Amino acid sequence: MDDILIKNVLLFGKKANVLIKGNRFSSVDAPADAQARQVIDGEGMAILPPFYNTHTHAAMSLLRGYADDMPLQKWLTEYIWPFEEKMTAADIREGSRIAVREMIKSGTVFFSDMYFDIEETIDLVNEYGMRAAIGVTFMESHSKSQQDDKLDLLKHWTDPTGGRVTLTVAPHAIYTVGPDLLKRCSRTARDLGLKLHIHISETRKEVDDCLREHGTTPVRYLDQLGVLGPEVVAAHVVHADTEELALLAKRGVTIAHCPCSNLKLSSGIFPYKQAKEAGCRVTLGTDGDSSNNNLDMREEMKFAALIAKCSSGDPETMPAHEALEIATRNGAEAFGIDAGDIAAGKLADAILIRLDDERMQPLHHLVSNWVYAAGSDIVDTVICDGRILMQHRQFPND
Amino acid sequence: MDDILIKNVLLFGKKANVLIKGNRFSSVDAPADAQARQVIDGEGMAILPPFYNTHTHAAMSLLRGYADDMPLQKWLTEYIWPFEEKMTAADIREGSRIAVREMIKSGTVFFSDMYFDIEETIDLVNEYGMRAAIGVTFMESHSKSQQDDKLDLLKHWTDPTGGRVTLTVAPHAIYTVGPDLLKRCSRTARDLGLKLHIHISETRKEVDDCLREHGTTPVRYLDQLGVLGPEVVAAHVVHADTEELALLAKRGVTIAHCPCSNLKLSSGIFPYKQAKEAGCRVTLGTDGDSSNNNLDMREEMKFAALIAKCSSGDPETMPAHEALEIATRNGAEAFGIDAGDIAAGKLADAILIRLDDERMQPLHHLVSNWVYAAGSDIVDTVICDGRILMQHRQFPND
Repeated sequence: MDDILIKNVLLFGKKANVLIKGNRFSSVDAPADAQARQVIDGEGMAILPPFYNTHTHAAMSLLRGYADDMPLQKWLTEYIWPFEEKMTAADIREGSRIAVREMIKSGTVFFSDMYFDIEETIDLVNEYGMRAAIGVTFMESHSKSQQDDKLDLLKHWTDPTGGRVTLTVAPHAIYTVGPDLLKRCSRTARDLGLKLHIHISETRKEVDDCLREHGTTPVRYLDQLGVLGPEVVAAHVVHADTEELALLAKRGVTIAHCPCSNLKLSSGIFPYKQAKEAGCRVTLGTDGDSSNNNLDMREEMKFAALIAKCSSGDPETMPAHEALEIATRNGAEAFGIDAGDIAAGKLADAILIRLDDERMQPLHHLVSNWVYAAGSDIVDTVICDGRILMQHRQFPND
Repeated sequence: MDDILIKNVLLFGKKANVLIKGNRFSSVDAPADAQARQVIDGEGMAILPPFYNTHTHAAMSLLRGYADDMPLQKWLTEYIWPFEEKMTAADIREGSRIAVREMIKSGTVFFSDMYFDIEETIDLVNEYGMRAAIGVTFMESHSKSQQDDKLDLLKHWTDPTGGRVTLTVAPHAIYTVGPDLLKRCSRTARDLGLKLHIHISETRKEVDDCLREHGTTPVRYLDQLGVLGPEVVAAHVVHADTEELALLAKRGVTIAHCPCSNLKLSSGIFPYKQAKEAGCRVTLGTDGDSSNNNLDMREEMKFAALIAKCSSGDPETMPAHEALEIATRNGAEAFGIDAGDIAAGKLADAILIRLDDERMQPLHHLVSNWVYAAGSDIVDTVICDGRILMQHRQFPND
């Protein structure tokens, strides 16, 4: 017998019965009399792939609204870093809890993180049933023994969730990690078959400093070091020329586009149209709550689509279905998660959204309404790996 | 005895008891034992001014998602206009109903509209208790007798809501209304003491066509016709140079900034920083559901603030409190509504927002969280003109 049956739910424009067995969809076209241990009434709802947030700093939810509306350098040095110095493991736990709940409530089942005290975050991910790729952060300022400990952790860590969490090697950025450590991180990621998560070309300053110090731009510099490859997830990539975008595409690098953060910090606008033309794999991230200031991927899709249209001068750029794709399937694929589609055989990750909300009416185009009009509060139910994380906006253990 | 007491609600960072008598706040600092006919428990909520949406086309909610991701000209001529030709008064009523409900649920109590079959929209505004400034739309394509009827309506109309609705004279734009009719509209607005609501410099094409036809730019052209004055509400103003912005400020024109629509249609980015420096009065509008695709002023504030920062290259541009101001007080002021502040003596327009939502935690800065992080679904209660339009997200007559 199957485990979950979602009855009468809208899928690709028609009513369907969706079956889940274990952690995979067993059918998305089951007969009306299908049976399962648990039945969800999908009437008045649509089933969609959930979000895969490819760049965030979950526990920074604690810094939400703590410092806004100021230049990046002042923001970092006078507010963020002094605050972070005082953060304890208990704080990281509390911040991760807020973030995990916020993400699930807005329809996200996976996030790629980069922060500290990762065991606290992993514990919350485990408790709430999400997926995550948790970065082990490397910075030059850490001591040699700290770095060795981190490398050791990467080699010997075992996943307490039974398959939903991986670690990533996360050298913070080229301006905080020198060439030797960057190369060491790269070797480690390749040896262990892990992703390498790094900020690249977020600001004009990063590019200018790189030109001065290394005589070339960040993407070219990293390629000269041999760091770029299909395991790399590059956050931001706001400042990249056509040749650099082609290089990222050729190396199979994944870009984690974070439009809200880039706009809010005045970092610039990611050249989406050119990246797409270059063949880059683009995914979507919210960045941390301290620079967004939320983890709402529905809102992020709208920002991504609208800013791509206006910055390219072409309203046909990033139509709604493409915004949904970068926020869902592309992110899952980038992290090797066999999900992102509601289809038999795929991992059972899904959201059910309510269609009775005014912002979903009329229903000329479901995906357009979801991307451009709705709010994430119409997410009624979240399913990850065949398990119900939230139903009727309630967490089972609240 | 007062009519409504809102107990223990967060106002300017501390708990307060807020009293309403008739349609005005009688106290925002009442004692704990204050009495009123109706008591609202404000525990766990903050009270804020509601939104005043200064440019929309309410009934176009019917076209939400009907045509997206295409150039403006194709969008208008192949989709919007053919659809609109088939719309009946009953359709306008249904569209207005969706829009009015959507607006109230997202915390808006007032909108400035421009569309057709206005009696249907006014009827819905009356039923749901909102405020509105309803445009009587003028276009050159209307017959002489239609135009006379409209002028007649403007002269003899009486407000069925007892003070919450006004009409505005709404010549659509300079490319759909010739100079004589523009001047006639202007005279009518001034004679009757009404606002004049018009689209100005929305697209580059409008500016180029104006240059070719009239030898000058839209703002200068309208000023030469004598149309610009403190009664004018100019929607969009995306393409305006520094001199034009100074002229708009000098004439006392109100700008209705519509960032989502301008981005989605690739019209361009309103030069907010320059407009502010020029001393313009800037307010916020969502435009219609067909080009946004919602009427959510909270989301619109975030778009306005983030795009102002990035386009100016200055993250200090439009801080959170300023985004809230243009979306609330500035809009009320522009339309002569004595509201937009929670203060004794002011008209009793307010929203209560829930603080238990993860996106409102931690509460370092209430306004920052509201503008950048929250969703409009945390609006619990909406009060307009001393009347409760929604409580616990329920409409009284549903």
